[in-house]
Amino acid sequence: MTYSPPSAQPVFVLVRPQMGENIGAAARGMWNFGLDRMRVVAPRDGWPNERAVALASGAGRLLDHAGLCDDVPSAIADCTYVFATTARSRGITVPILTPEHAMAQARAIMANGGRVAVLFGPERAGLENDDIARANAVISVPVNPDFPSLNLAQCVLLCAYELRRLADTTPPEVLDMAGTDFANLAEITALGDHLEARLDEAGFFFPEDKAPRMKRNLRQIWSRLPLTQADVRTLHGAFRQIVRWAEQKRDQG
Amino acid sequence: MTYSPPSAQPVFVLVRPQMGENIGAAARGMWNFGLDRMRVVAPRDGWPNERAVALASGAGRLLDHAGLCDDVPSAIADCTYVFATTARSRGITVPILTPEHAMAQARAIMANGGRVAVLFGPERAGLENDDIARANAVISVPVNPDFPSLNLAQCVLLCAYELRRLADTTPPEVLDMAGTDFANLAEITALGDHLEARLDEAGFFFPEDKAPRMKRNLRQIWSRLPLTQADVRTLHGAFRQIVRWAEQKRDQG
Repeated sequence: MTYSPPSAQPVFVLVRPQMGENIGAAARGMWNFGLDRMRVVAPRDGWPNERAVALASGAGRLLDHAGLCDDVPSAIADCTYVFATTARSRGITVPILTPEHAMAQARAIMANGGRVAVLFGPERAGLENDDIARANAVISVPVNPDFPSLNLAQCVLLCAYELRRLADTTPPEVLDMAGTDFANLAEITALGDHLEARLDEAGFFFPEDKAPRMKRNLRQIWSRLPLTQADVRTLHGAFRQIVRWAEQKRDQG
Repeated sequence: MTYSPPSAQPVFVLVRPQMGENIGAAARGMWNFGLDRMRVVAPRDGWPNERAVALASGAGRLLDHAGLCDDVPSAIADCTYVFATTARSRGITVPILTPEHAMAQARAIMANGGRVAVLFGPERAGLENDDIARANAVISVPVNPDFPSLNLAQCVLLCAYELRRLADTTPPEVLDMAGTDFANLAEITALGDHLEARLDEAGFFFPEDKAPRMKRNLRQIWSRLPLTQADVRTLHGAFRQIVRWAEQKRDQG
């Protein structure tokens, strides 16, 4: 073990992983969310693993720098807090956390200078009781009890996602205006005027005693919708063109 | 389209998916989090898809019941609110939401009787602008900008996970007591008494003026740790055995 993480991110430890494809997919899942500290304990098919490298495409750097360890104790020797991921309850007295709560706790521990590891078990059997007994807490993803079969790479992805989500400063909603701006009230009013004038000419507001209400309903459509200036221009053009087409029809008729 | 979702969950629409494997993995990801309403628009390799079925193992029912549609409009015809998942900004005026915020919004819409669809694009190119223009909002996963390549099944998994997480009633932390209970203060005190007595005999508390502080520090270890009754019994047994071993050594010596 020559590898030590320089910054505050947890080490993801793949314990006795079997398929190279899953190691590669796990690397991708980590890097998708900006994590790049991986350790691999006794991978079944040796190390480096060609299929892991092939699957990691773009995240291969994680595998190049991954610490290769003989056993779990040496993989977590420099860590001060260890999470174990497991689907099953094992009869060990241990706190069981949701990924969300676990990653929030990991962030708090790291903010206080602690070094965090997250253990992920082999594909088929998961972590052994001996591995879990070394952990401070267990992470259990709240899956469908009828179908709890999360694979290794999916479990890595969800933990990485949660860590990123909790740190993320992306606003929950951004409006991509695509170069235009919302129409102001004068523009909305002018659009309403335009359509109302055309419809007045066309005899739309009938009978006369219903006209005020019909006009109000029509205005309210435009007021309620978040129209952009580009939308308003498009609709003006559309109304004009319908009138032009009607006039051409009349002239032709 | 004969399929209509009976309960309040969104329809996940796979738009022109390419690899059967990814369709199968998407089905698994949905079912992992209890979602089973899938529609498939113009899958490249026809329908049903053998490789999708093989990969879906355990979630094959979703594929059996998936609605097969010719195009996006027919896939979302009965929906009242449509999200499109995309990594890129497309120059379309549209709200861009995090998965978390989008799924919270989806839940609110469904709680008011609305029917929600989430569009997922084909593996390579993603959704086309024509597809996105039909959506009310875009979901963008806040990935590592250096490595934004989430695949189809991963994107489905994260959206399904977020929906489940927001609805989930799992407490953030549960302590699996594994059949024991926390030790009470009397038990902790008795454990401290036991060790202190043994150490007194062994001449541990030296020099005498430091003894009170040493005893306090030792007590505080047990008070600080969340020991169970089983832990306390184990430690009593361990202390006793060390003494027994020392006595045997002495008798043999």
